[in-house]
Amino acid sequence: MSTLFLRTLRDDPADAEVPSHKLLVRAGYVRRVAPGIYSWLPLGLKVLAKVEAIVREEMDAMGAQEVRFPALLPREPYEASGRWTDYGPNVFRLKDRRDNDMMLGPTHEEFFTLLVKDLYSSYKDLPVSLYQVQTKYRDEARPRAGILRGREFIMKDAYSFDIDDAGLSASYQRFREAYVRIFDRLGFEYVVVHAQSGAMGGSASEEFLAVSDTGEDTFVRSPGGYAANVEAVTTVVPDPLPYDDVPAAHAEQTPDTPTIDTLVAHLNEAFPRDDRPWQASDTLKNVLVVLRHPDGTREPLAIGVPGDREVDPKRLEAVVAPAEIEPFEEKDFAAHPALVKGYIGPGVLGVESVSGIRYLTDPRVVEGTRWVTGANVLGSHVIDLVAGRDFTSDGTIEAAEVRPGDPAPDGSGPLELARGIEMGHIFQLGRLYAEALGLQVLDENGKLVTVTMGSYGVGISRAVAAVAEYAHDDLGLCWPAELAPYDVHLVVAGKDETLVAAGDGLYDDLRAAGLDVLYDDRVGKVSPGVKFKDAELIGVPRIVVVGKGFADGVVELKDRATGERVDVPVGEIVARLTS
Amino acid sequence: MSTLFLRTLRDDPADAEVPSHKLLVRAGYVRRVAPGIYSWLPLGLKVLAKVEAIVREEMDAMGAQEVRFPALLPREPYEASGRWTDYGPNVFRLKDRRDNDMMLGPTHEEFFTLLVKDLYSSYKDLPVSLYQVQTKYRDEARPRAGILRGREFIMKDAYSFDIDDAGLSASYQRFREAYVRIFDRLGFEYVVVHAQSGAMGGSASEEFLAVSDTGEDTFVRSPGGYAANVEAVTTVVPDPLPYDDVPAAHAEQTPDTPTIDTLVAHLNEAFPRDDRPWQASDTLKNVLVVLRHPDGTREPLAIGVPGDREVDPKRLEAVVAPAEIEPFEEKDFAAHPALVKGYIGPGVLGVESVSGIRYLTDPRVVEGTRWVTGANVLGSHVIDLVAGRDFTSDGTIEAAEVRPGDPAPDGSGPLELARGIEMGHIFQLGRLYAEALGLQVLDENGKLVTVTMGSYGVGISRAVAAVAEYAHDDLGLCWPAELAPYDVHLVVAGKDETLVAAGDGLYDDLRAAGLDVLYDDRVGKVSPGVKFKDAELIGVPRIVVVGKGFADGVVELKDRATGERVDVPVGEIVARLTS
Repeated sequence: MSTLFLRTLRDDPADAEVPSHKLLVRAGYVRRVAPGIYSWLPLGLKVLAKVEAIVREEMDAMGAQEVRFPALLPREPYEASGRWTDYGPNVFRLKDRRDNDMMLGPTHEEFFTLLVKDLYSSYKDLPVSLYQVQTKYRDEARPRAGILRGREFIMKDAYSFDIDDAGLSASYQRFREAYVRIFDRLGFEYVVVHAQSGAMGGSASEEFLAVSDTGEDTFVRSPGGYAANVEAVTTVVPDPLPYDDVPAAHAEQTPDTPTIDTLVAHLNEAFPRDDRPWQASDTLKNVLVVLRHPDGTREPLAIGVPGDREVDPKRLEAVVAPAEIEPFEEKDFAAHPALVKGYIGPGVLGVESVSGIRYLTDPRVVEGTRWVTGANVLGSHVIDLVAGRDFTSDGTIEAAEVRPGDPAPDGSGPLELARGIEMGHIFQLGRLYAEALGLQVLDENGKLVTVTMGSYGVGISRAVAAVAEYAHDDLGLCWPAELAPYDVHLVVAGKDETLVAAGDGLYDDLRAAGLDVLYDDRVGKVSPGVKFKDAELIGVPRIVVVGKGFADGVVELKDRATGERVDVPVGEIVARLTS
Repeated sequence: MSTLFLRTLRDDPADAEVPSHKLLVRAGYVRRVAPGIYSWLPLGLKVLAKVEAIVREEMDAMGAQEVRFPALLPREPYEASGRWTDYGPNVFRLKDRRDNDMMLGPTHEEFFTLLVKDLYSSYKDLPVSLYQVQTKYRDEARPRAGILRGREFIMKDAYSFDIDDAGLSASYQRFREAYVRIFDRLGFEYVVVHAQSGAMGGSASEEFLAVSDTGEDTFVRSPGGYAANVEAVTTVVPDPLPYDDVPAAHAEQTPDTPTIDTLVAHLNEAFPRDDRPWQASDTLKNVLVVLRHPDGTREPLAIGVPGDREVDPKRLEAVVAPAEIEPFEEKDFAAHPALVKGYIGPGVLGVESVSGIRYLTDPRVVEGTRWVTGANVLGSHVIDLVAGRDFTSDGTIEAAEVRPGDPAPDGSGPLELARGIEMGHIFQLGRLYAEALGLQVLDENGKLVTVTMGSYGVGISRAVAAVAEYAHDDLGLCWPAELAPYDVHLVVAGKDETLVAAGDGLYDDLRAAGLDVLYDDRVGKVSPGVKFKDAELIGVPRIVVVGKGFADGVVELKDRATGERVDVPVGEIVARLTS
């Protein structure tokens, strides 16, 4: 440590919110260069290399073959797949000196597809699975949390190529098993959830999430074993209700009730129900947003949800991708005078309506359900508006928030919500890219068939942060043995020549035994206290202290994670650490 | 090989000129994605990893510490060093979604400097040497030769940081020794030459060149051991000559002599000398070019060289960098009516002259030398124009070509010329970046001093091509053992079940013995001839053939490079290959 390129910091970086970001910077693993763009210092690079090695080992073991694509990519293949436009502002685009359009690759589906097309031509060549460990780029709107969500990051991405659906299923299964092995080795708690495949299309889709309170992703799980990310949860659709006995809809004065709470209070005061009080869930809230499509066009959209639920921005984003969500602004209200803010009802919504605004409703709004909703007049709501009788929408949308206790779609019980970090994503991509780019091979009968693909990603640099997020305490990082930058952290606690000589000797002995040792040989003003603090912060799993006990022939062996300390005779410490 | 992601190609790629480019593509090591941008296929990636490993081992062994910077970099540090502008069109620039200027890093001097500034503050922290293995970008005007000169490439770059010049010299020497070890291991013929440090400034500067007829760089060497790249060769300046007896300059009619050859012929016919015939070296040729400065401004420049030498574009480029060279066009002649094309002489050149064009002359144009040169009149030249008497220039310039037989600047004999590929560059950068970016530390007396730096680069991806360029023959590649993608290429030459079973068994035995084996287990239409051809093309150093001799208990062991074949008893082949 007297020569290691490392300075630990006492203070958290100003922009850090989550523990992994604070600790990886403070302990000298990474250093910020620009928003969402980091340098790796020696300690960080060692952990990163270990994550890479685990992923490579498991990919090689399952028969995937490593290649490496460039990061700087020409426009044409992205144009052919439609993604040059679909990516919108989320990628880095540039021009070269000859004015050619280029992109810094956020993913490489097109190029894997073209490479297989380039080299292979027969069903005999398949299946094949290829992967790369490579630097990728996304121009995140809000880069955050250090290397957890950066703009330049390292991913392992892989693709399987099969002649038919059965082959794809088999390849998918093999990757899934390899992923379980990878995530078991990475050493954090994780969960495999059903997922939407987002902008990428495709069918079967699962995410590997690191369970973490600071995670950006919300997932659900049920007692019966259902697990999904919140974007993938489908609403259990109730049966239609009979409505022959429901009175005709009637508009009522509801002054000063622009919110659901004020509306429910007013209803209970002015129009009390016989059976029970009015609830938020009796109301139908109509939320307006604007979709910005990748080509730049803006499309207003109205979403009807039960008044006790918010629209979940992430679920909405997932369902409208590649379009992005923008607020419905004053200018949009001005353009649609039929919309009375706070009192908007289905009567002015829908492509056939006066506003022409597309109107999608929550799947719970089934035929026969009765709603209180806006009457499209200031200070007025309609009561007893029956879906299917008094209004229809242009379709349903899975955009309402999922709440604890909601039923799992597979009937496996009530859902609980938790947070996680997306660490891996595997999904059956199908023939989307093969069709767009013409990847066909001859089948057994000499007929050209389109290849079907699977897509399998792991966040390599993100995994370093995810492990740090999982394995730390108030004092610092606590790396699992397989990912730690060193096997042992050796501290000489004192300036005494005998201690220093003992430390030097032990350092040599431990290294001779094949251990990778971080040796705190700093002398001068660095006190034992500072050394201990640094050792806790850096987080090597086993700390050996040559200190007071040395006179009695013992060194202290400390387990970083549990804090457990034992005195070990000097002569036994090497054997103890290598056993 | 029945499952390896590989297709060898019979034909050279259309755009390939040099052997390494042809062979690396044909043998399935790399594949083009865009001009100067390549993907690495499994075989190529294995060789690349071996080059990386050699470089890392030698860097670690000499005590340099590995870090990794991003490739996508903010503008500000480049602005502070002046390189945002200096790079001109040779880099990729882009804007992020917030309109921030960014660059894809061609080198990282600024960021290494800032990182050390960020973490270190005292002379006690120094010396320190840092390196990275990283993907870099240059928007080459003419990407060529496959991965030999690409726009996205992998480099190891390193920097040393010292408190004083003596420290820098010591660091430089340690890197130089490590470089010798690296290049000895890479296995191609190389030479260490004095070099210009180009746009980067600095003093001591050496290049490691792979000797290769197809190299882009020309270097010189003398019998006495002088070696330099052609840009770094300094002209041996002759002593001034007495000119008291030289007649006054006199203009003569020389119609239709716009070239040196026509001029010399005319002189010998119309104005024959007594002592000897006129030679091209008696004439002074004035060459016009335009410098385009990084800020976009154009500056005309006149260069006077003896008529028997051309201006060498590379030497000129090096000396005017960061300006670039453009042709002096018709519009430039139009802007300077005093210039008579083909008959331009010193009389109209120089910043004080009628044209105002800066005029630099070859160092051989010393005081007292006599020249025939343009009279600035169509069809007329001046004879007996004496430097220092009849004209002066604005200075000298090292832009004339170096020719075999020219004297070495250190007096070590006549130079011979050869070609090479620049593989490494080490130089004493000095305080340029530390001053620009404020990298100072406290010295022993508590005084702030500016740190001095060395810069040390190796082309990692280029090394793969350089080895291929060196180690190949008409049949294909011939990798040295340390870089070969596999240790052994095992071929089953026949479809006979006994042979196949023997091949399978041998494959297992060789792998069990720790060898990395490429096993050509292809059956069906792949003939032994095709397998042999592929083995020659791919270039694994040792080829084992299980074929005809197997019935007699032997397999054939072939040395790829020498072509030597021996029969080895089956029972001895593993021992033979592992010994």
